[in-house]
Amino acid sequence: MTNTLQRIATTLAEARTILIICHISPDGDCLGSSLALAFALGRLGKEVSVGSPDGVPEIYRFLPGSERILRAEEWGARADGELDVAVMVECSTLDRAGGFKDFVLQARRVVNLDHHMTQPNYGDLLYWDPQVSALGEIVYDLIHLLGVEVDGAIATCLMTAIVTDTGAFRFPNVSPRTLRIAADLMERGVHPSEVVTQVYDSRSVGSARILGLALTNLKVSPDGSVAWTVITQKMLEEAGAKPEDATGIIQVLRGIRGVKVALVFEENAEGIKVGIRARDGARANVIAESFGGGGHVGAGGFTLQGTLEEVVERTLRRVYAELHDCGLQSA
Amino acid sequence: MTNTLQRIATTLAEARTILIICHISPDGDCLGSSLALAFALGRLGKEVSVGSPDGVPEIYRFLPGSERILRAEEWGARADGELDVAVMVECSTLDRAGGFKDFVLQARRVVNLDHHMTQPNYGDLLYWDPQVSALGEIVYDLIHLLGVEVDGAIATCLMTAIVTDTGAFRFPNVSPRTLRIAADLMERGVHPSEVVTQVYDSRSVGSARILGLALTNLKVSPDGSVAWTVITQKMLEEAGAKPEDATGIIQVLRGIRGVKVALVFEENAEGIKVGIRARDGARANVIAESFGGGGHVGAGGFTLQGTLEEVVERTLRRVYAELHDCGLQSA
Repeated sequence: MTNTLQRIATTLAEARTILIICHISPDGDCLGSSLALAFALGRLGKEVSVGSPDGVPEIYRFLPGSERILRAEEWGARADGELDVAVMVECSTLDRAGGFKDFVLQARRVVNLDHHMTQPNYGDLLYWDPQVSALGEIVYDLIHLLGVEVDGAIATCLMTAIVTDTGAFRFPNVSPRTLRIAADLMERGVHPSEVVTQVYDSRSVGSARILGLALTNLKVSPDGSVAWTVITQKMLEEAGAKPEDATGIIQVLRGIRGVKVALVFEENAEGIKVGIRARDGARANVIAESFGGGGHVGAGGFTLQGTLEEVVERTLRRVYAELHDCGLQSA
Repeated sequence: MTNTLQRIATTLAEARTILIICHISPDGDCLGSSLALAFALGRLGKEVSVGSPDGVPEIYRFLPGSERILRAEEWGARADGELDVAVMVECSTLDRAGGFKDFVLQARRVVNLDHHMTQPNYGDLLYWDPQVSALGEIVYDLIHLLGVEVDGAIATCLMTAIVTDTGAFRFPNVSPRTLRIAADLMERGVHPSEVVTQVYDSRSVGSARILGLALTNLKVSPDGSVAWTVITQKMLEEAGAKPEDATGIIQVLRGIRGVKVALVFEENAEGIKVGIRARDGARANVIAESFGGGGHVGAGGFTLQGTLEEVVERTLRRVYAELHDCGLQSA
């Protein structure tokens, strides 16, 4: 694997024009890794650009260099057809490059960097390592192979990559090496708390208030295995909150001791949106699929028509059946 | 400083009976550090006990050895008057040892370990380092000086100390060394996510409900720089919550965009307990000290007598003065 990364470094060192491409709906790891690599290649005198089909979400605009990230149409307008290397960042398929797909096909060489569970299978040079917590760890190694010293800007981008993909070091994907890389990045001029403040400590007042109302109305099944709450339009108004302010409430329900299935029922224009989180053996996707929704074992969702009361009752009946099927409930 | 820690190691190595004493309302750093040191001293054949005037809060009962922690009356019943060394863990004053105070006065030698901002001034041997994120970092060094290898139990206790005092690596008190110690502890058999699951993902239903009530009553200053809420005995009853269930509410307030000072006012038997968190230049310890409390820049606390309304008003006036002093507020 290290040989491949060395060959990627050599390919990049020999290139003149390089385009680094983020996947659609980019996250902090994708954007941070892309920008860090762009800074390093810029220091080597390369003509380097970063493309993001969906632009840059507001919470990541503190990233140095984020203002120069191009959308596909902006790149198209300035590209002269000459592209030595396209670097794909966490694009498991070419479609994940969105509007950049056609430009990738025109590049002389395609480098593919990924760490997600599904192994990608395209590109002239593919480096895939599902063991690392964040692609930022791979880019950290690549920058060292390029012989570029990590400066404050690169450190900030890589710290953001690692912090966002590890829930600020809280997820099981953290390794001793993750922490040691973060320690090194701190010595290059970035504190993890600066990234945390930008990404996590920017809850709105409305979001705190809607969380308050939702938890005040919290319901728990007699055996403690199911927790749920509702969010109505009236509650959002009372809290001065926007619908997106309710994101994250379900995580608090999931974090209650003994809870195997957490549910949030949210009134919106399409009906009642139901979010599900499951743990300890219960399957969120199985519940969601039986109502025409989807997801994975830990998280799923669907939307139903009906009154809040009806939807809660139908869903709970299905949840208890799932707990029974999984042997998680005696009743 | 290192000389002092070496002398403490020597003193402990020469002792036969040792009592390690936690402060009242013990937190994860205090309990984890105390237990880690007890395991290390036990391995050296010492007669070692850990005392906690307020026992062990439920969320810390996963800590190995926590079941053997004694309350003052239990220690009193079994003590034979022979105590070579009392090790004070984060007890800035003797009163913080609660019911253990009298036993401390009878010990041949008193070792005082602390990392809070206020320098303690008692004890035969005092090691104080406000630069470290957690007392666990000091105990990590002390255990090395004692020549004891860190095993899984010690690693779990020290990881808990560090995780709880750094908000799982999210606070500004994290240093590169904090992360490198945590990396080493991982290699000794504990993953930070295990501690996170125990401490942060095992909220009681009462704790979720009291968080709900507290956030529903959230107040924010007109300029958005101060957020506060109150927790009354009546709210705890309504939520079915214990006082310790209110821990962590202040962190949610601190995480609101634009908030520089977060406050939680809690009714208890001694009066109104005020917790403070500060960021972006405001100093929690300066506010706390003006009311006879203590802490460090980011976190502090104190207790006042009076009605809830009076205490809120007095505290807010002091907070606005602090924001003014720090140039953080125009008014």
